[in-house]
Amino acid sequence: TINGERLWDALMDMAQIGPGVAGGNNRQTLTDEDAAGRALFQSWCEAAGMTMGVDEMGTMFATRPGTDPDALPVYIGSHLDTQPTGGKYDGVLGVLAGLEVVRTLNDLDIKTKHPIVVTNWTNEEGTRFAPAMLASGVFAGVLDQDWAYARTDAKGLTFGEELKRIGWKGSEKVGARKMHAFFELHIEQGPILEAEGKDIGVVTHGQGLRWIECTVTGKGQHTGSTPMYMRRNAGRALARVTELVHEIAMRHQPNAVGAIGHIDVYPNSRNIIPEKIVFTVDFRSHILEVIETMVAELNARAPAVCAEVGVKFKAEVVGFFDPPAFDETLVARVRDAAARLGYSHMDIVSGAGHDACWINRLYPTTMIMTPCVDGLSHNEAEEISPGWATAGANVLFHAVVETAEI
Amino acid sequence: TINGERLWDALMDMAQIGPGVAGGNNRQTLTDEDAAGRALFQSWCEAAGMTMGVDEMGTMFATRPGTDPDALPVYIGSHLDTQPTGGKYDGVLGVLAGLEVVRTLNDLDIKTKHPIVVTNWTNEEGTRFAPAMLASGVFAGVLDQDWAYARTDAKGLTFGEELKRIGWKGSEKVGARKMHAFFELHIEQGPILEAEGKDIGVVTHGQGLRWIECTVTGKGQHTGSTPMYMRRNAGRALARVTELVHEIAMRHQPNAVGAIGHIDVYPNSRNIIPEKIVFTVDFRSHILEVIETMVAELNARAPAVCAEVGVKFKAEVVGFFDPPAFDETLVARVRDAAARLGYSHMDIVSGAGHDACWINRLYPTTMIMTPCVDGLSHNEAEEISPGWATAGANVLFHAVVETAEI
Ligand SMILES: NC(=O)NCCC(=O)O
Ligand SMILES: NC(=O)NCCC(=O)O
Repeated sequence: TINGERLWDALMDMAQIGPGVAGGNNRQTLTDEDAAGRALFQSWCEAAGMTMGVDEMGTMFATRPGTDPDALPVYIGSHLDTQPTGGKYDGVLGVLAGLEVVRTLNDLDIKTKHPIVVTNWTNEEGTRFAPAMLASGVFAGVLDQDWAYARTDAKGLTFGEELKRIGWKGSEKVGARKMHAFFELHIEQGPILEAEGKDIGVVTHGQGLRWIECTVTGKGQHTGSTPMYMRRNAGRALARVTELVHEIAMRHQPNAVGAIGHIDVYPNSRNIIPEKIVFTVDFRSHILEVIETMVAELNARAPAVCAEVGVKFKAEVVGFFDPPAFDETLVARVRDAAARLGYSHMDIVSGAGHDACWINRLYPTTMIMTPCVDGLSHNEAEEISPGWATAGANVLFHAVVETAEI
Repeated sequence: TINGERLWDALMDMAQIGPGVAGGNNRQTLTDEDAAGRALFQSWCEAAGMTMGVDEMGTMFATRPGTDPDALPVYIGSHLDTQPTGGKYDGVLGVLAGLEVVRTLNDLDIKTKHPIVVTNWTNEEGTRFAPAMLASGVFAGVLDQDWAYARTDAKGLTFGEELKRIGWKGSEKVGARKMHAFFELHIEQGPILEAEGKDIGVVTHGQGLRWIECTVTGKGQHTGSTPMYMRRNAGRALARVTELVHEIAMRHQPNAVGAIGHIDVYPNSRNIIPEKIVFTVDFRSHILEVIETMVAELNARAPAVCAEVGVKFKAEVVGFFDPPAFDETLVARVRDAAARLGYSHMDIVSGAGHDACWINRLYPTTMIMTPCVDGLSHNEAEEISPGWATAGANVLFHAVVETAEI
């Protein structure tokens, strides 16, 4: 079994970098804080005898060699970037548990046939540069690399420029690596495991997602001197689409969720009726047809709902992935490991998107989930117990060692 | 009569400073652009033989002496600051028409008994630092000067610091000046004069206003992995209050207006349910009881409307003034001047707030309005015709000369 205390110490050390304002983290992708987090991770990998490769999207691959020169590596990974008001475990647990697997193998002097590679995928969160899981999406051949480089943040800086600026644009071609398998350990980010009293979630499927960036355009006019009947208030269009999105998601509940998290108002002045509002709808389901139905319904109804208040509606898909079904052999291996180790466990669907969802398109992939307190994530108050972290890393260790073969 | 071409040239020269992105202006208060606009206005005033005084709120007072040392000055003024996406005439017309009145008096070598003072009030717009009409509010003794200095912009910079930084904090005590009368010429910022085919609006009353800064607080959670029934989505609270504000205003129409122009979402990430949204409701009417009824209704109903979606509602009044009734003698003088000059005119209520609304509490005050195309203001596309500007300045000239006495 792994060293739970050492894993917890690593989590707490990483959380020192890019502290948030309320006990969590703000280590957004391609910021100076991201660079510092990467450097710390690299130093740990090198101390554990691994060699680091970096690809043109900035994704980090730390390799522990195997004994068979022809065997493809087993990959373990997740991400070190955080939300602007993020927690200490979302993504970080999966990367540092990968490191802990290698450290434990070193302690026990175990050699595996297949090399083991611990991975930190660039820009999983997608807050600064949409969409989420950007680097793994390019790796999987689903997103275009030049398109990814051209993604801009709210200040207009591009992903490509910022990747160079922080000094983490590697030379390795993206997607050149072949994998024997990919494992991602992640906190659930939802309430189910805790509510059911389970230590381990065996992830069989994931939700797919569509991010629909909507622009509603009315007329920016004086709030005081414009008669009510002359108004074309983009804020009222936002209000109506907010409730429409909720209503659509509720109709497909519990197989779907939907909300608007990002809203930018122009010109955003107290005495100007909003001229334009740009906002992103997030629709998800583990059933592809449900996602497609929800998007179709939004596109069919939102224009009329906005036109009723004199506002134009435009929509563009800026993020998407279809619901993944994970590799049955690896899923069974995770379930067996949990049982063997005596952890309570249940099968679960991942509500969030993960790098594993993209890698699953290419190579046998699966995920392991651990509970988080109150299902809270994407919030600085995100919390897990050291026992949960240890359980997840132990299941990861056993499933990985079985796959990498001693 | 005044020189319409010279007035128009001055308007176009001032519009060179702080150009917007769509043909208008971005010369927000206490920015470098504001400082440049002030310097240009000062140079014009000095060339016209006036002496400049500046008070501790940065308001500029350019004086043309009178012949009677005991006579209080007649003040003319408005503001040179603009909205972030503002027009070229909102406020600027009133200041530069004041300058044109003095230039015309110089041309005609007319001396007046009362001095004439042309005024540029600081921070009329209130976008960068709420509330609007900040300096005239302090002048009128309604707002506290230290409170005004402590107002912050979106970056957390204070009004007091920024006033010093741009070098326009004067030494004159605010409100020390006594006025014989105050005149403000302004574009209507609404559609009525144009629709009625009138050149001049004789402003008898103004709307009062309340700016209510609302904070709705839910829970920032993952948009994908949080079940629908667990959500406390602050975005839904905004949606409901948006429609509530509209409904309340519609019920009092045409005697009232209401909208939300300013909306800040936290943490504003595509995959986080909004935790907190801060937004400002703008309610106006020319009938005090209607304003008070609307505010009371919002406070009575909004908490419940938000609680239904699990969100807390908090409100604070950050801007207010009661509906002014302007001085009947001055109003009649404006009406007579318009008639004498052969301009079509009508009595009108000012939909927007103006510095004149505050000064009206202390001294005989009135306003003159000119049409603007499509009633559009607080928009870079704001437009007026040179003929309208000339008509407004001519009526101003005649009413001021009659008040200042030859
Ligand atoms: N795990 C996670 O929060 N990833 C970000 C992508 C998503 O929004 O699901
Ligand atoms: N005239 C003008 O737009 N003033 C700003 C104050 C207001 O919102 O009415």
